[in-house]
Amino acid sequence: MLKLYSTPGTCSLASHIALEESGAAYEAESIDFAKQQQRSADFLRVNPKGRVPALVTDRGIITESPAILAYIGQSFPDSAIGVPKDPFEFARIQSFNAYLCSTVHVAHAHKRRGSRWADDPAAIEVMTLKVAGNMGDCFELIENTMFSGPWVMGETYSVADPYLFTLTGWLEGDGVDPARFPKVFDHFQRMTERPAVKKVLAAVTV
Amino acid sequence: MLKLYSTPGTCSLASHIALEESGAAYEAESIDFAKQQQRSADFLRVNPKGRVPALVTDRGIITESPAILAYIGQSFPDSAIGVPKDPFEFARIQSFNAYLCSTVHVAHAHKRRGSRWADDPAAIEVMTLKVAGNMGDCFELIENTMFSGPWVMGETYSVADPYLFTLTGWLEGDGVDPARFPKVFDHFQRMTERPAVKKVLAAVTV
Repeated sequence: MLKLYSTPGTCSLASHIALEESGAAYEAESIDFAKQQQRSADFLRVNPKGRVPALVTDRGIITESPAILAYIGQSFPDSAIGVPKDPFEFARIQSFNAYLCSTVHVAHAHKRRGSRWADDPAAIEVMTLKVAGNMGDCFELIENTMFSGPWVMGETYSVADPYLFTLTGWLEGDGVDPARFPKVFDHFQRMTERPAVKKVLAAVTV
Repeated sequence: MLKLYSTPGTCSLASHIALEESGAAYEAESIDFAKQQQRSADFLRVNPKGRVPALVTDRGIITESPAILAYIGQSFPDSAIGVPKDPFEFARIQSFNAYLCSTVHVAHAHKRRGSRWADDPAAIEVMTLKVAGNMGDCFELIENTMFSGPWVMGETYSVADPYLFTLTGWLEGDGVDPARFPKVFDHFQRMTERPAVKKVLAAVTV
């Protein structure tokens, strides 16, 4: 059985939703950042990077959201979350997800995780000032140049949808009104109505 | 015919090498960052993010290194750079490449691109102080927990190899001695002996 290590409020929510959508048998275990469990010896054996998500399979452990999402999509191709075999259609999804992990997630991380890139508290504070602007710029680009509608890739729901949903959920906390992006905001609201999303949100907020 | 937009010194080198290894017919066009060509109206029509690499295919344009690399590997499965169809083996590659794009490339970018995340020159200067340490930490993790050898994934060369080669090439400029990481350093040197790598390096340094 697949096992997902995740933490509420992090990008692991995307993988959790994708697992639920896939119909796979899985269990989820929460890693408590407040207790620094991600740096524990036990968890570093799972993921030496000390991060979530990490997906334990019977073949080994997979880390990094875009890789886990593609793995779930390829392993359950006939589910709601199955990814296309066509290299170009698959690349569209991977391109979007790579943008989320390398640029959007990173823009967000400068709010609370600035100590990754600077030691001086004043510099860390300065970084937080740019987060709302950067997140707004990223979502403007998503809204205007990447989002096809009604789902991220167009008519077909894909592993890009729970990932976008997860990062859209960070906007308010980052000081950005999600309603500035009508298509993305509508997508966020429709996502919350999906049974798989409801079930996962209920599980992680207990 | 495939067309790659690339810039010397950037991560687009990985896609360039992968194209050469694939045996695909392609052309490469250089985008001059010194002339701000990446922000030109012409190039923003190719990639609204104003970044390289961007790969033009007859179906549309693909951006983001991990997506382009996977696309080349899936499109030319029988070439030196072909990616495995097995979802787990593919996920291993994608996980490694996602780490490079979301963490290692980002650590490096705080040296010269700090203005992405802070406006205050003093804060941008402070960020540069942490680059060598962060890059060293990333490559220690790669050396000790990710690199299988002789290639990144083990016995089989993959699209992870030109990507690692590209980022290893940034270490010296970031103040890190690559010889600290014997397996990765040996990989870097063996990469420079591959005919495809020689050909691309000669083309981009003319």
